[in-house]
Amino acid sequence: MTTVGIIGGGQLARMLALAGYPLGLRFLVLDPDPQACAAQLCAHLCAPYDDSKALDELAQRCQVVTYEFENISLEGLKTLATKVPVYPPPAALEESRDRLLEKRLFQSLNIPTPKFIPIDSLEDLRHAPQVLGWPFLVKTRRLGYDGKGQKLIRTAADIEAAWEQLGGQALIGESFVPFQRELSILAVRSPHGQTVFYPISENIHKNGILHMARSRPGDPLTQLAQDYAHKLLVHFDYVGVLALELFEMHGHLLANEMAPRVHNSGHWTIEGAQTSQFENHLRAILDLPLGSTEPVGFAAMVNFIGVLPALSDTLEPPGVHTHVYGKAERPGRKVGHATVRAADEKTLESRLHSLLGLLP
Amino acid sequence: MTTVGIIGGGQLARMLALAGYPLGLRFLVLDPDPQACAAQLCAHLCAPYDDSKALDELAQRCQVVTYEFENISLEGLKTLATKVPVYPPPAALEESRDRLLEKRLFQSLNIPTPKFIPIDSLEDLRHAPQVLGWPFLVKTRRLGYDGKGQKLIRTAADIEAAWEQLGGQALIGESFVPFQRELSILAVRSPHGQTVFYPISENIHKNGILHMARSRPGDPLTQLAQDYAHKLLVHFDYVGVLALELFEMHGHLLANEMAPRVHNSGHWTIEGAQTSQFENHLRAILDLPLGSTEPVGFAAMVNFIGVLPALSDTLEPPGVHTHVYGKAERPGRKVGHATVRAADEKTLESRLHSLLGLLP
Repeated sequence: MTTVGIIGGGQLARMLALAGYPLGLRFLVLDPDPQACAAQLCAHLCAPYDDSKALDELAQRCQVVTYEFENISLEGLKTLATKVPVYPPPAALEESRDRLLEKRLFQSLNIPTPKFIPIDSLEDLRHAPQVLGWPFLVKTRRLGYDGKGQKLIRTAADIEAAWEQLGGQALIGESFVPFQRELSILAVRSPHGQTVFYPISENIHKNGILHMARSRPGDPLTQLAQDYAHKLLVHFDYVGVLALELFEMHGHLLANEMAPRVHNSGHWTIEGAQTSQFENHLRAILDLPLGSTEPVGFAAMVNFIGVLPALSDTLEPPGVHTHVYGKAERPGRKVGHATVRAADEKTLESRLHSLLGLLP
Repeated sequence: MTTVGIIGGGQLARMLALAGYPLGLRFLVLDPDPQACAAQLCAHLCAPYDDSKALDELAQRCQVVTYEFENISLEGLKTLATKVPVYPPPAALEESRDRLLEKRLFQSLNIPTPKFIPIDSLEDLRHAPQVLGWPFLVKTRRLGYDGKGQKLIRTAADIEAAWEQLGGQALIGESFVPFQRELSILAVRSPHGQTVFYPISENIHKNGILHMARSRPGDPLTQLAQDYAHKLLVHFDYVGVLALELFEMHGHLLANEMAPRVHNSGHWTIEGAQTSQFENHLRAILDLPLGSTEPVGFAAMVNFIGVLPALSDTLEPPGVHTHVYGKAERPGRKVGHATVRAADEKTLESRLHSLLGLLP
């Protein structure tokens, strides 16, 4: 009997568990929230992420530990990794959660990025447009997600306000990329180096939160995206799912950020690929053979943000697969998603259109 | 928040829960076994099936109750049904678990069956071949499953031994059907009468236990099987999944038995149909729109009986989806299954052949 520990008990942990039970696995999630939605179906350690007793218990009860949440104590994670295998490697987490380290890593691996500079003072911010041009983005290096912790600076007049809002913490300036498409690629690697890639996702954000992701099997940029992801896998001697978000600019790709975990832009893999990202993440961290990432038809995913549509509405149309996370509704919160699948792209677009009509 | 109660905490309950969590449902299983495998992922009332306190708690905590196990107290179930909706209707359970009532019901609905007679004495058994011919089967009316509680009688010399083994309980004699195929059809009906059917399953038993089931979309006997199942749905004002097992004899169908629940011969629907039998059972009992039963490629299922093959073996080949139930291995026990899926029948057969080679 193998028990997998998961730090974080949100929807990613929940979907990992749903993918892992059919493999005979058991799950133990660590989450300080007594209402953590994964706890509806997993054993739950209700304690702070850096609680050393809880981390010890995780190490004792689990054969392997993974995480679905990035803002955890790195020290705790590294200590944990001396007692039980922790995947993906903590080093990947360390670099991914600091936008400056992350961009420098991309640069060192010859993965193109938007122009960027560290910003540690109002002075730095005032000089940024000389390097980055106009407009440009200023972001916190840490703790940003879903569009939080960043400002678009259009003119010199925006600088003071942005500093007032974000200053006092480590920042990064990035040139604004007028991209044609936002893409992501999900790669999976197992301890002995078996590597698979999912078809590229084409993503649309709304208010900084992922709104929709479409699988793009056979996209002409597939090979390039795989090459970039592969460099990261090798660099970290990576184990698990890695998501790399990219901008497409005139046939080139610029790396925006990476996430060392299963990723929202890959939720369509549950129905739209032979093996889901969740199952393959588990297979990877348990050193089991990775499953096929071949597409099953054409698929797209739409997030339910803040509120859920009526279940009776989303269960009606053919090809729509509803995923409710068991979380309380709250503005801006991801409370569920639906995958739409079809045998051809035209039917997919029409089904997607109908589904979007059901959203509040 | 909707909680579904399930009487019985085995693999069927487990797979119902795995299908229901993505719909935002919660589950409470009643099972006297502290090791009940569904309890690994569901809330668990550990009490006898006829424990009135436990049944009361089920009624209080659940919005609807279903069952995965047929040998429960009918009185308890009927009392429960006065407090909370119980689906499928207890009447269907009552008739299905007595082979004589069941066969008489089939007869009354003009659903052909093998010849049968009640057997209540050694005298009855001695006279049986005059009606049933040779060879014939004698079975207990109640509590038979997986080939248990039945004997094939080939000659008059077998009669005494069969009586010694099975006599003293209510029995039924049935003529032996030298069938060409064993088939089953799974039908689903919701409270307002929406009805869907899955493609026919072609089943192979070994030692009385289901060994393999293949989906047969477009089988020429589909309409006939649907007609028979439909009569049962209407008769019971049925809600949920109903499985009807049939023998094919020279293009005709003879009803063997029915099961008022999700069914082993429909496990391939998890990967091989747009909506699984488990999800559709839940949709039906919750009066939600039923999902499409369209096939996704060609699919077959192989049971793991007694022992599990190595996970690393079954996860390797493409198109194989492994389901481990989290139960201890024991001879004759269903401990898991694998679904094999392919885009065409030839590939399916070749994948199935490889999978069978992995079984112990």
